[in-house]
Amino acid sequence: MGRMTAVLPHPERDEIRIEAVLHALADPVRLRIVRELAQSEEGMSCGVQLDLGISPSTLTHHVRTLREAGVVRVQPRGTSRISSLRRDDLDALYPGLLDGILAAPR
Amino acid sequence: MGRMTAVLPHPERDEIRIEAVLHALADPVRLRIVRELAQSEEGMSCGVQLDLGISPSTLTHHVRTLREAGVVRVQPRGTSRISSLRRDDLDALYPGLLDGILAAPR
Repeated sequence: MGRMTAVLPHPERDEIRIEAVLHALADPVRLRIVRELAQSEEGMSCGVQLDLGISPSTLTHHVRTLREAGVVRVQPRGTSRISSLRRDDLDALYPGLLDGILAAPR
Repeated sequence: MGRMTAVLPHPERDEIRIEAVLHALADPVRLRIVRELAQSEEGMSCGVQLDLGISPSTLTHHVRTLREAGVVRVQPRGTSRISSLRRDDLDALYPGLLDGILAAPR
């Protein structure tokens, strides 16, 4: 098994679409991931650091949905994948959106 | 055919859930309806005043999704149904969310 060095595709800022962002966020598990990432400056390995009670393949699906929508950036680090919130891009495109969602009582 | 006087069910403010709001907004037609309603203080009859290029039954489905999520309020007025954006509720629950979405270039 080699290192996971493949660079995963991410939409550029101007390729991010609001419908995809909203769809990505409209799920309790993905919203929880986003809330956790919002607390973490340097990003995290969701599979290692979050106890979401879901299978690795389900987690992979959710993180991919977030990545493809432009909500998170996923970067290989050794054998892990570190996810981080694309707050700069989202705040630039949709000022207030992320804060409004993170402020949600539920 | 009598007048459409039935009062449609709406979630109270504290029953509105962020996942349902985001799901309701994560659709191009519904987002367009919301953008139009955001311009209209007094609300509008979506079927009469918006040219969305969709069938009446599809429009009904979209407006119902928005209503059940707590994004719009639908009130009978004569034989019409007037939809209006629940901006007060959404701004109170998720400050910045709606403005961030409405500011989206696309």
